[in-house]
Amino acid sequence: MIDAAPRDSKFILTLSCPDQPGIVHAVSGVIGEVEGNIIQSQQFGDPDSGLFFMRVEVDSPVGRGPVEDGLKRVAERFGATWSLDALGRPLRTIIMVSREGHCLTDLLYRQRSQGLPIEVVAVVGNHPDLAPVAQFYGVPFLNIPVTKETKAKAEEELLALIRSEKVELVVLARYMQILSDKVCEEMSGRIINIHHSFLPSFKGARPYAQAHDRGVKLIGATAHYVTADLDEGPIIEQDVTRVTHADSTPDMVALGQDVERRVLAQAVRWHVERRVLMDGSRTVVFSR
Amino acid sequence: MIDAAPRDSKFILTLSCPDQPGIVHAVSGVIGEVEGNIIQSQQFGDPDSGLFFMRVEVDSPVGRGPVEDGLKRVAERFGATWSLDALGRPLRTIIMVSREGHCLTDLLYRQRSQGLPIEVVAVVGNHPDLAPVAQFYGVPFLNIPVTKETKAKAEEELLALIRSEKVELVVLARYMQILSDKVCEEMSGRIINIHHSFLPSFKGARPYAQAHDRGVKLIGATAHYVTADLDEGPIIEQDVTRVTHADSTPDMVALGQDVERRVLAQAVRWHVERRVLMDGSRTVVFSR
Amino acid sequence: MIDAAPRDSKFILTLSCPDQPGIVHAVSGVIGEVEGNIIQSQQFGDPDSGLFFMRVEVDSPVGRGPVEDGLKRVAERFGATWSLDALGRPLRTIIMVSREGHCLTDLLYRQRSQGLPIEVVAVVGNHPDLAPVAQFYGVPFLNIPVTKETKAKAEEELLALIRSEKVELVVLARYMQILSDKVCEEMSGRIINIHHSFLPSFKGARPYAQAHDRGVKLIGATAHYVTADLDEGPIIEQDVTRVTHADSTPDMVALGQDVERRVLAQAVRWHVERRVLMDGSRTVVFSR
Amino acid sequence: MIDAAPRDSKFILTLSCPDQPGIVHAVSGVIGEVEGNIIQSQQFGDPDSGLFFMRVEVDSPVGRGPVEDGLKRVAERFGATWSLDALGRPLRTIIMVSREGHCLTDLLYRQRSQGLPIEVVAVVGNHPDLAPVAQFYGVPFLNIPVTKETKAKAEEELLALIRSEKVELVVLARYMQILSDKVCEEMSGRIINIHHSFLPSFKGARPYAQAHDRGVKLIGATAHYVTADLDEGPIIEQDVTRVTHADSTPDMVALGQDVERRVLAQAVRWHVERRVLMDGSRTVVFSR
Repeated sequence: MIDAAPRDSKFILTLSCPDQPGIVHAVSGVIGEVEGNIIQSQQFGDPDSGLFFMRVEVDSPVGRGPVEDGLKRVAERFGATWSLDALGRPLRTIIMVSREGHCLTDLLYRQRSQGLPIEVVAVVGNHPDLAPVAQFYGVPFLNIPVTKETKAKAEEELLALIRSEKVELVVLARYMQILSDKVCEEMSGRIINIHHSFLPSFKGARPYAQAHDRGVKLIGATAHYVTADLDEGPIIEQDVTRVTHADSTPDMVALGQDVERRVLAQAVRWHVERRVLMDGSRTVVFSR
Repeated sequence: MIDAAPRDSKFILTLSCPDQPGIVHAVSGVIGEVEGNIIQSQQFGDPDSGLFFMRVEVDSPVGRGPVEDGLKRVAERFGATWSLDALGRPLRTIIMVSREGHCLTDLLYRQRSQGLPIEVVAVVGNHPDLAPVAQFYGVPFLNIPVTKETKAKAEEELLALIRSEKVELVVLARYMQILSDKVCEEMSGRIINIHHSFLPSFKGARPYAQAHDRGVKLIGATAHYVTADLDEGPIIEQDVTRVTHADSTPDMVALGQDVERRVLAQAVRWHVERRVLMDGSRTVVFSR
Repeated sequence: MIDAAPRDSKFILTLSCPDQPGIVHAVSGVIGEVEGNIIQSQQFGDPDSGLFFMRVEVDSPVGRGPVEDGLKRVAERFGATWSLDALGRPLRTIIMVSREGHCLTDLLYRQRSQGLPIEVVAVVGNHPDLAPVAQFYGVPFLNIPVTKETKAKAEEELLALIRSEKVELVVLARYMQILSDKVCEEMSGRIINIHHSFLPSFKGARPYAQAHDRGVKLIGATAHYVTADLDEGPIIEQDVTRVTHADSTPDMVALGQDVERRVLAQAVRWHVERRVLMDGSRTVVFSR
Repeated sequence: MIDAAPRDSKFILTLSCPDQPGIVHAVSGVIGEVEGNIIQSQQFGDPDSGLFFMRVEVDSPVGRGPVEDGLKRVAERFGATWSLDALGRPLRTIIMVSREGHCLTDLLYRQRSQGLPIEVVAVVGNHPDLAPVAQFYGVPFLNIPVTKETKAKAEEELLALIRSEKVELVVLARYMQILSDKVCEEMSGRIINIHHSFLPSFKGARPYAQAHDRGVKLIGATAHYVTADLDEGPIIEQDVTRVTHADSTPDMVALGQDVERRVLAQAVRWHVERRVLMDGSRTVVFSR
């Protein structure tokens, strides 16, 4: 993990483990040892899965090392999965696109103007159409076309890029290809997709056309982690917007784009702020 | 059709037919003949189905007869389905329930205090639990239990009631039995059900448990006309509410009840105000 | 405080104090001493006010006494305001009404059918109109009329009731009288009002008429704690609904009632679940 | 008016006049004369103002001339204000900006990719910051700085541009200067502003800081026509988003930007689709 600390003394710590007494006390004990102060914190015990989840924003004058040492001890004791990172450190991110640019444009705008903490190391498109958008924002654009024949090679290229650039997050910003299981596994919990329907409604192709045919009165979008099981990954965020009988399928596509970009940006922000913890096939989202 | 006219000179007229020039002019011509004034009107041509839809609120000093005569002429010329009714006339309504009272309580409250234009001729329950609610609002309660053995007889009883009371609308307010095709056909377009999910997601049993398992971030409800094809009838209205990882299935049930009663009341209001027109398996809703 | 514990071993603990290191560790230390397990917890430090806020749901086998002792020690050390209560214990509540029954009906329905944890010791109305609603739900109704002449005496009667019944919460469910400063102070932080506008818009009389005149496209409602400063108390919850040019002032009143009852019920639930902490003239709401 | 007709035979017609019988029949009579077919239409009579409003999308094979002639006749007879335009014709538009680019970026994106029917003849900024955005979308950028001394001259330059370019719509996309009464009058009903609060709450400077101080739970934005009376022009569209105690003023600014750009884009789309008609200080919006 990269140790660039934009706000030197502030950290985000997350932890999940089988629920049991003493976890919070142990963690706050570590924080005490490092003379830390809790800025914000949330804990949740899931009675279904029996797991406990914790997220803490902490301010400690002694720096990362001692915090990490203490946390390792606690994690070992409780059998916990954990993470520690400098608060606000941008994640090294690849954005993958096809032809539709609304999500890409939105993410790059938010990165530049709204402080969305991602460092976009590359935009990867299977079509070249969105190269100018990347260029405008000063981000390298890689065209990796995908056909049945080149798919395996294209994925190798992608994985090589992910490894060489130490990519921490892949955002599928209306990328219309399916990633192989290999990529899904290697980047498990670190690939976010935006699906243009209110899952689990209208899986598969052309969800807006399906929605139009069914005559629904709301359409939606779903941001989820990508797993090998298509459209079934853990949901991070969803939202909807109202449609009427007068909205054609193309109208719905345009209306839906607004929801898609908003939902995706929200999910990316929550992920990079370490607010999303995995709870089996569901997510715990410690939103503000 | 019953001719009680709460506001003597005001009418709602609806009409749908294959789209073609001259419909609006013909209708407004009739309105001119009866010295009528248009209060509010909406028209819509659906390019998919090729059908044209029209709803007019009109004020005419000459009374119902001449309006109806003119409208019949127009309907014949254009091959139209039509309706004409006194504006604000309450529809004769049966509300069917099982054990959960939130929708029933809400509809009866709105009928009494918010001017929801329904005349509730009876509440029918397959369980007796909600009799006191009906009684409080001064509405007859009929307990018609349904078992596998008595189902046919129970439906006969229901149909007899519908006929003898000249029932115009049946509202399934969390009625947990499936109506037979016979009832669905006889009351086609006049039975409104509230489904406790955001259709087409989570059809079938226990939708909130399904929603909880899938980890969705919004739950919803759907009001639709009942057809022989379960959960597939034309949708009138839908809405959603936000849930989090901390909401258990019972929490979702409670949160969902709010959406259910709101969506059902909206659908009933729009139906009785003649704002809902059937467009194949979809609806045109001329909302305000 | 009443010690009826519906779930014997589960408690809600809240605490606020000037922000400083060690608070969470001290509280979790107490929880450790009582062999407690944290079910859910949230902490927040407000950089503006310099205050720290904490809410914990804890399960402890040793009962209330030791938890309270430990908590007192911590509170003393950090100069904290705190509360401790059995999880799910219903608050002793008075609901005050005038003529409009939508909020009253809704609260009583939720109390009975959705487990809203309030124990309604009385409904107090300055008009007798809503007595039947209280009666239907088996709650005593007190008619305390208020005129300029009787106002002082009416308030004495109210205060006497509050004291004799050990009332913990007063809900103004569209009560159209202004409470005196004396009552506001005695019950400070324990009177919730529903205001029928999206505060701070449209303070004062007839907010829906004001909203109609201004031509707004959304109307709303605000639940807030009552202070001596009219319509200026700390806001707990707000929501809005869409209106159009076709909605008259009475239409807006009806639409607004839906928002009012929803917002009020949400605020009451959050209050009784001890999710609302006072932060000067604002609130910290640890929603789920 | 410019006669470029992107879809040759389709027109939008709007009309408002004192309410009286026969208006719809007269208009549909004209449509009949020109062998037109109504695609979509809405009518509304406002009982408060006594005005009648009508919007028709019509398909006529005989072209604009005869439609216009007929419409003029009708307008004269009923004392109506009217407009006729080719359906989908983009309005010649100036977008005015200062330093914040979210609304500009959004409008230009929608113009290019979502078919928002505006033809942006220039972006005018009192600061040069957003020139690159205009350039990326191939739109001329004009920097017209405004100081107390140069204000009069700057407005002359703006008016000259409006006249020479036959500008039909001015969009204030977070333009932080106040236009003079002269410009407001000359372009009356054709200047749309986005105000970064839920009007009438938080008029004046720094609305998000005001919202934060007041502790509101929702923040919003308002698109309205600009009049000489600051922040008091007729409202076209509003929307809100949820905030919590954990959102600082800068957080609210970022969250609010999402609402601002969405509300402004919606208002612009409705305006150019001729869905917004002026009803005194309010608007009639014939949304879909």
